Amino acid sequence: MHDPSDDLMWMRRALSLAEGVLYTTTPNPRVGCVIVQGGRLIGEGATQPVGGPHAEVMALRDAQARGESVAGATVYVTLEPCSHYGRTPPCVDALVAAAPARVVIAMGDPNPQVNGQGLARLRAAGIAVTAGVLLDDALALNIGFIARMHRGTPWMWLKMASSLDGRSALPNGVSQWITGPDARADGHHWRARSCAVLTGIGTVLADDPQMNVRAVSTPRQPRKILLDSRFEVPLDARLLDGAPTWIFTAREDAAKAAVLADRGIVVTCLPDAAGKVDLTAMMQWLGRHEINEVHAEAGEKLNGSLLRTGCVDELLLYLAPMLLGEGAAMAKLPVLTQLDQAQRYRYTDVRQLGDDLRVRAQVEARWQSLRKAVEVAA
Amino acid sequence: MHDPSDDLMWMRRALSLAEGVLYTTTPNPRVGCVIVQGGRLIGEGATQPVGGPHAEVMALRDAQARGESVAGATVYVTLEPCSHYGRTPPCVDALVAAAPARVVIAMGDPNPQVNGQGLARLRAAGIAVTAGVLLDDALALNIGFIARMHRGTPWMWLKMASSLDGRSALPNGVSQWITGPDARADGHHWRARSCAVLTGIGTVLADDPQMNVRAVSTPRQPRKILLDSRFEVPLDARLLDGAPTWIFTAREDAAKAAVLADRGIVVTCLPDAAGKVDLTAMMQWLGRHEINEVHAEAGEKLNGSLLRTGCVDELLLYLAPMLLGEGAAMAKLPVLTQLDQAQRYRYTDVRQLGDDLRVRAQVEARWQSLRKAVEVAA
Repeated sequence: MHDPSDDLMWMRRALSLAEGVLYTTTPNPRVGCVIVQGGRLIGEGATQPVGGPHAEVMALRDAQARGESVAGATVYVTLEPCSHYGRTPPCVDALVAAAPARVVIAMGDPNPQVNGQGLARLRAAGIAVTAGVLLDDALALNIGFIARMHRGTPWMWLKMASSLDGRSALPNGVSQWITGPDARADGHHWRARSCAVLTGIGTVLADDPQMNVRAVSTPRQPRKILLDSRFEVPLDARLLDGAPTWIFTAREDAAKAAVLADRGIVVTCLPDAAGKVDLTAMMQWLGRHEINEVHAEAGEKLNGSLLRTGCVDELLLYLAPMLLGEGAAMAKLPVLTQLDQAQRYRYTDVRQLGDDLRVRAQVEARWQSLRKAVEVAA
Repeated sequence: MHDPSDDLMWMRRALSLAEGVLYTTTPNPRVGCVIVQGGRLIGEGATQPVGGPHAEVMALRDAQARGESVAGATVYVTLEPCSHYGRTPPCVDALVAAAPARVVIAMGDPNPQVNGQGLARLRAAGIAVTAGVLLDDALALNIGFIARMHRGTPWMWLKMASSLDGRSALPNGVSQWITGPDARADGHHWRARSCAVLTGIGTVLADDPQMNVRAVSTPRQPRKILLDSRFEVPLDARLLDGAPTWIFTAREDAAKAAVLADRGIVVTCLPDAAGKVDLTAMMQWLGRHEINEVHAEAGEKLNGSLLRTGCVDELLLYLAPMLLGEGAAMAKLPVLTQLDQAQRYRYTDVRQLGDDLRVRAQVEARWQSLRKAVEVAA
């Protein structure tokens, strides 16, 4: 009836359409859709920026524009089609109306408003459904959306650049540039795909970074998040350049907050018992505010806090081919007395970028829990 | 006349024969030889342990044992055949007597007693010669022998195991085991191929290691080298288990040296101006004593000294997927004030071993200088 290798080929194309909108769909997932009739592609599309049509509707429109009928065709979608009225009508309705013979999806949507109902509606309309084709690739592409839907908090990767012996700066503070231009551009790619770039007041006071995307081209700048427990941020910090920014503090200062509010910057006071920003509460806050993916890039102190409180799901590490000996550590962590006290990661991707190495590593259990959430019962 | 892709195929086979004797030929290079007649393999061989026949003679004997004539055949050798009387007669004589039509080599032998004379003798006998086939692979396989022949000192790799943030032990000294069994076994593979495993008195006093090869099977244990400036080694150190061992000190102690000499352990006093072992002099000493490859595995102090004095040609680094924060550094190095003061390396191979990452990185200029030394003028 249908060839599994065809399914892989067309789903790969759907995934690459989704990759093409990696920087632009937030807070929606990046989805790609391909419609195939008798082995021939008759329509394709990807999620438009928020409020615009989803991938399935784009692909159906594409088929229509080509004068093709979708009746009896196979539709490949990288995520279970939505079955609810959100900012747009349910994609399932559009699909059922087009009457394909079969819908192939990469993964289910754990969004409580979808969560199998999309597929059930398709099946109820007599459409055959296949699920789980290239599931891991699909999950990697929308790891943050799935995290938010499943557990209510964003997926956070912690970006760090260091020498092979883990030094992110010389003792005198010099850190520009430990890694080369290819690694730095790749870092901007990860900023660009994130919903928000998070840093700390220590980094702002030391380096006054812009924390925006420059080295890659993007139509959307990610939101900025500044962690500033004592609310010390200078009003002329380069970070506060007018882009949408959230500041989390542990100290109220209504006057300063009002000045910032005039510039569209939202200040939220979320103190923990120690007078620091409550990072766990912040992650939940971010989830409620539709942040899927957080790109964290900070100094050793905040890195340590994010790691210690379990906020970090993934390490995004750039290793320069040198040893520096003395200097800043990647992350300030509590002293361990046994090796099994350390959080372990799983390497997911290692590659050379220019002269440097990029190492990605995840907390295995987090990935597995999300993977389970997108599996669809056969 | 001859197909370059055939040359690659047969040379690959010759290289894999050489790899098969990786642990056993020292101080001779590992060489493989394949003899091909009309597209058919008629003989092959690899270097035997020191004093035994070289690869070419083994392959010629193999052809004879199969009743094959080498006249008019093509001979593939991973290193220029020797042209001098060493522990065995010149391989060139045996080749000329067998009268192949053509000899293909991977690289020249910079040994002053060979250095192009092997090829010249073949050409003078009317044998066609092709050089440079899979040169980089051949060089990697005998990097230490070539280093010793070309510059008079061994090739040293520095083996280190650490967390992703460069910690090789917890603050309380716990380091067993940061990396897993696959990485540790791979470390023993590198010990096994080395001529000598070098460590320092700090490691002996802290961990009392055996410094031998256990996790892989080898018919030959590498020599042990202990750096012990103040000659503090306890006579019951596990390192001194009877295997051939050299101790370098900066302090004379004739009585202690005599006790050790009775156990076959040679003590050499090589002080520098600061009262430490003169590492540069030691490298030359090792070169004179036919040490091709040194596997260094020590603590942060000696690692730093070896790096600082330029003894280290290559890093062999095992990175465990965790962050430890506080703990021992990989190497104690002088404080830098600018990033360009750091020695840079070139990544040559990165792979996952079990849960860990193995990173190899070389001093690029050192590799290039040896590469030039084995290139043969066309």
